[in-house]
Amino acid sequence: GSAPAIIHAQQNLRWRLASSFPKSLETLFGGAETFAKNVTEATGGKFTVSVHAAGELVPAFGVVDAIQQDTIECAHTAPYYFFGKDEAFALDCAIPFGMNSRQQTAWMYEGNGLKLMREFYANYNIINFPMGNSGAQMGGWYRKEIKSLADVNGLKMRIGGFGGRVLAKLGAVPQNIPAAEIYQSLEKGTVDAAEWIGPYDDLKLGLHKVAKNYYYPAWWEGSTQFSVLINTKAFNGLSNEYKSIVRQAASDAHVKVQATYDGRNPTALKQLIAEGAKLSRLPKEVMDAAFKASREVYAELNDKNPNWKKIYADYSRFEADAYQWEGIAEGSYDQYMSAQKL
Amino acid sequence: GSAPAIIHAQQNLRWRLASSFPKSLETLFGGAETFAKNVTEATGGKFTVSVHAAGELVPAFGVVDAIQQDTIECAHTAPYYFFGKDEAFALDCAIPFGMNSRQQTAWMYEGNGLKLMREFYANYNIINFPMGNSGAQMGGWYRKEIKSLADVNGLKMRIGGFGGRVLAKLGAVPQNIPAAEIYQSLEKGTVDAAEWIGPYDDLKLGLHKVAKNYYYPAWWEGSTQFSVLINTKAFNGLSNEYKSIVRQAASDAHVKVQATYDGRNPTALKQLIAEGAKLSRLPKEVMDAAFKASREVYAELNDKNPNWKKIYADYSRFEADAYQWEGIAEGSYDQYMSAQKL
Repeated sequence: GSAPAIIHAQQNLRWRLASSFPKSLETLFGGAETFAKNVTEATGGKFTVSVHAAGELVPAFGVVDAIQQDTIECAHTAPYYFFGKDEAFALDCAIPFGMNSRQQTAWMYEGNGLKLMREFYANYNIINFPMGNSGAQMGGWYRKEIKSLADVNGLKMRIGGFGGRVLAKLGAVPQNIPAAEIYQSLEKGTVDAAEWIGPYDDLKLGLHKVAKNYYYPAWWEGSTQFSVLINTKAFNGLSNEYKSIVRQAASDAHVKVQATYDGRNPTALKQLIAEGAKLSRLPKEVMDAAFKASREVYAELNDKNPNWKKIYADYSRFEADAYQWEGIAEGSYDQYMSAQKL
Repeated sequence: GSAPAIIHAQQNLRWRLASSFPKSLETLFGGAETFAKNVTEATGGKFTVSVHAAGELVPAFGVVDAIQQDTIECAHTAPYYFFGKDEAFALDCAIPFGMNSRQQTAWMYEGNGLKLMREFYANYNIINFPMGNSGAQMGGWYRKEIKSLADVNGLKMRIGGFGGRVLAKLGAVPQNIPAAEIYQSLEKGTVDAAEWIGPYDDLKLGLHKVAKNYYYPAWWEGSTQFSVLINTKAFNGLSNEYKSIVRQAASDAHVKVQATYDGRNPTALKQLIAEGAKLSRLPKEVMDAAFKASREVYAELNDKNPNWKKIYADYSRFEADAYQWEGIAEGSYDQYMSAQKL
């Protein structure tokens, strides 16, 4: 175990990373910062990645175009933002009644997920690495209680990503509103409800001050995987060492983002409850109707979108097996422990 | 995004890693191989780690001594093997009714876990990095059914790690038997029951052929974290770049080991059932008695072992908060999904 004398004789390299998230969302913006720090450290500062908040270089939802057009080398984003280009983006992120965090990671690395998503992303001049997951999200803040499916009908709700497609089938009116405007929309009654992420991030927006009914779970985000998307030419131009360093830097950030959520949500939830949030489970009737609607949406997509059909066939098989196992050791253990006074 | 011309001018460095696992246990032995591959790749082969199976350099349970005595640079192990030296080792791995996989990782990186365990490991000339988790394990194979707490009394059971301490309080007789001898012990009736890991690893041992009653969950291993333990002098002798590469290599392996379990257990469970395994949940009476016994053991340890007392105080606070949150979004989502026909 003697120390090596290391002399790096490498050209300097600087990449620009566009985050789809604001600096204030430290959980997610922090994931990109971790990635950048990792690359810098491992290369002794020869290879650096400058991290830019949403809107600084390109708009939050413009990062895929910017990579495709060789404007930036990479981005950190929630790929379901781009389901308007192709619904298959959502399979790298979150779909209603989709896999939980560990299952999604397992599909990527042990199943066919990474292979299939990379085939898909190649059409956009992109190579992807999973980089963070929020875990199961909360079902949002509601001005009025949701006691039955009838209460969802006509509900104007801020909802991110792909879930709105399914929510609309229940008669709700999904709205896409940027983070910074959610509070005001909910306060004014422009929307009746708004979902964001989970206790830690939601607390920052202060949504419990304008709509105290806090429902769970977000059936549209049983987990939400974030990814670093990299320009294929930029990645292929790297040495094998740098390619590996980038891959491992993303893996480390993948671990840390989930750990940040898992570490901070518990105390944030306690604070929200102390400040008046009223915690309730979404009625089974609502969950069941949404589940049925999700199957209808997926059947329609299978008919219309060959990319979706190919990748979802693998995703859904993996998910079915994974949930059959999840309910056994993991589920029974977690249920027992959640019921204990610890 | 242009490619750098990389010239590494570094001394060659080779570390030896002793695994506590046999090559045949590809899930865990594979974790060390992933770590070694990562280090080699990121350094262009200048820094390599040779991976040795249990017994090759040192016995499976001799790896901590070997690091402490500067015989090897690092090891990949389940730290609870060393609870005989100090029970605090188990807090880096698994304790009965302890944290689940994501909670344990969050405690390490977002809570005080890594800091506290490193203070502890410093006494052994070791610096640790989490490197893999099995997730919640199965409760093992039983020749006869377990219908009540009375059926546990007098039960001779092969059990790994720290769980035997609690099991003994229920009147059972815990036995420590190496993997290779479990099948025969169970077949001959030398033991009445044996736990190993979960479906994928258990299937390899063929335990369902000699004891068909397969119980869940392993209340003694709600998750089991594995770690790479590194000789402090060897680690401190590394350049900052190499230190960071080692850290990130471990993080990547941490992701991959859990993904391997999560990806392979589901189909292995189906196969075990097809081959006659009879799946049952441990009676609540048994779980409750074991939970109560675990609290007694921890109270005793708090009195006897100051290392345990200090670290467990932080661990148990983190766990209590984590499980209060776990039952909300994550738990309700997973329960709903496990009950669906997917």
